[in-house]
Amino acid sequence: MEFIINNQCLNQAIYEVSQAVASKAILPILLGVKIIAEKDRLTLIGSNTNIAIESMIPLMVGGQEVLKVMEPGSLVLPAKYLSDLVKKLPGEVHLKSDAHRVTLQSDTIKTALNVLNVEEYPNLPEIEHKKIIHIKSRDLSTLIKQTVFAASKRESNPILTGVNFSFQDNTLTCVATNSHRLSLRTLTIPSEIKGSFTIPSASLLEVHKLMHDEVDEILIGLTDHTIVFQAKGLSVYSRLLEGTYPNVSSLLLREFKTVLILNTENLLKGIDRATLFASEWKNHNVNLEIIEDSQLLISSHSSEIGTIEEVQDIDQMIGERSLCISLDGAYVKEALKVIEEKAVKVSFGGSMSPVLIEPVDNPAHKQLISPVRS
Amino acid sequence: MEFIINNQCLNQAIYEVSQAVASKAILPILLGVKIIAEKDRLTLIGSNTNIAIESMIPLMVGGQEVLKVMEPGSLVLPAKYLSDLVKKLPGEVHLKSDAHRVTLQSDTIKTALNVLNVEEYPNLPEIEHKKIIHIKSRDLSTLIKQTVFAASKRESNPILTGVNFSFQDNTLTCVATNSHRLSLRTLTIPSEIKGSFTIPSASLLEVHKLMHDEVDEILIGLTDHTIVFQAKGLSVYSRLLEGTYPNVSSLLLREFKTVLILNTENLLKGIDRATLFASEWKNHNVNLEIIEDSQLLISSHSSEIGTIEEVQDIDQMIGERSLCISLDGAYVKEALKVIEEKAVKVSFGGSMSPVLIEPVDNPAHKQLISPVRS
Repeated sequence: MEFIINNQCLNQAIYEVSQAVASKAILPILLGVKIIAEKDRLTLIGSNTNIAIESMIPLMVGGQEVLKVMEPGSLVLPAKYLSDLVKKLPGEVHLKSDAHRVTLQSDTIKTALNVLNVEEYPNLPEIEHKKIIHIKSRDLSTLIKQTVFAASKRESNPILTGVNFSFQDNTLTCVATNSHRLSLRTLTIPSEIKGSFTIPSASLLEVHKLMHDEVDEILIGLTDHTIVFQAKGLSVYSRLLEGTYPNVSSLLLREFKTVLILNTENLLKGIDRATLFASEWKNHNVNLEIIEDSQLLISSHSSEIGTIEEVQDIDQMIGERSLCISLDGAYVKEALKVIEEKAVKVSFGGSMSPVLIEPVDNPAHKQLISPVRS
Repeated sequence: MEFIINNQCLNQAIYEVSQAVASKAILPILLGVKIIAEKDRLTLIGSNTNIAIESMIPLMVGGQEVLKVMEPGSLVLPAKYLSDLVKKLPGEVHLKSDAHRVTLQSDTIKTALNVLNVEEYPNLPEIEHKKIIHIKSRDLSTLIKQTVFAASKRESNPILTGVNFSFQDNTLTCVATNSHRLSLRTLTIPSEIKGSFTIPSASLLEVHKLMHDEVDEILIGLTDHTIVFQAKGLSVYSRLLEGTYPNVSSLLLREFKTVLILNTENLLKGIDRATLFASEWKNHNVNLEIIEDSQLLISSHSSEIGTIEEVQDIDQMIGERSLCISLDGAYVKEALKVIEEKAVKVSFGGSMSPVLIEPVDNPAHKQLISPVRS
């Protein structure tokens, strides 16, 4: 195996696939990056038990030759050293290998690296080319950003640690919940896929990081156990979570006593200040109250530190002019942070009923937060 | 006690004094910031057992009124909450206190904070106004930056964890060493102070952080146990380390067999690459060798990972054209990083003799690094 490659292209590909390589692993082979040289391309792969990332470098990029393959082949190199090394090489990298060693040369710098056993490296899953959707990268980014934070961080109920994607009647619905709060986002999209599957949050965060705004269209392919996101030379494979995702549609069909229209940014800032004094062991309790029939009082209290309260204007109020509820301030902050619209509609059904938070004029995004006992 | 203050001025002062406030402390009072309101100023103090920082806000800053004191007084507030809170307040802060509580109001936001007992707060040391030096902030910055990294990180020999300042014949000499490497920087400066004292590295790093480039002149005051750095409204007090600092002047009077003039940046990059493969438990060993009578070979080897070697040009060579030495690559990197000059003179006295590293054309800065057995 022998090739010469532009160091920046190699560096970028190593960066991408390294996202899937753990810094510690029971199987040493998974600490490696697999490099496959073919006549017309170089492919790098990094993987762990949940996710695999593949990055392909063609011979030419933007009309410039970036790769020349003299002899095809494949090998596995330790990701950490390869990444640190290539970052610090000044120019083109000339890689050449025999059975047990590989030499990398750049300018007057020569390195010899021990290789890992390429035979041990796991194969990537094969994806049928029937079950495929095309989605704009910006849309996928929004779907992920507005749902993934609401997934559970606890492994006790594994299915809730992912985001559920379901396709029905040309609508994709993404839902995440930790059973105390929920975020749901829909998108109208033509699709031949039907049904529902749940993707681990960590995988979606990788997709969001690597494919954020960089490409116009992402192709999503599916098998029973695996999903792949592909764009340009980059593919992110993820296992799917097993189990049935709870049906959440009934949770959103509620009646509300009081509906407030508020300024999203002001409300976020007010909640942010109030959570300063809301101690962690008390679920970051923040209290909301309507005072003088027309204003919102946001407050929190800690016997140890002190109290904080502030009054905010309400842009519009529908229903009962009374309200007194305690919410987890951290949940409210995270909910408001992903709302891009300037105005937010907050609907209350009583002090023990979940609160519905929606951007005004965008029915595609709905969030629920359960109140806490104050 | 009552005053109204510009929130940005208050925020800046809290930031400065908070540097001295630990996040945990045996004495709860040291988790607080002391605030003293006088007719014409507001003073904030943060401290721990090693360092105290005082920041003073006058009534006017840049022709603008920033402070109005209605009633003088003093109190102590928990640093963490005060800092988090003031950062998030939208405008002027109105602070008012009674015996056990203080209220802070900004716009429609009202907070009440529990106060700590002001009587418990330790007093700042008094500095005699005889023992004083004036130094340019840029000079002090250079002195600190070029020495402090070489101090010992181990508490086993406490005096070596500081930087020794000694004044003699209008020359200030700063030295730091961990007994394996040493950095010495001199500065010509008129001074009425004589003698030598050792300042904890952590205190110097605070001074460097807070007074870096911001002010033109820093005043240094001394007592037997304390040093203070003062500039504009800011004072940093530090305890001095007890004990006698070792005499290092004889270490620098050596004979050398080979002297090389090298490009500082290229050498730094080469050493940086070579340390990639130099495992930590082997002291980051990097080998230097003269090859073909004219070039420098930089290499390192790890049986686990592989080898790296590169050849660099030597700008000038004096003395024996042979050299083979192993050095701690991390020490060499740190030494080269603080050299601003483009060319560096490296002098070798044999494979077991310390290496002298100096910038070309600047006799004020000298560094020694002991070799390691290869």
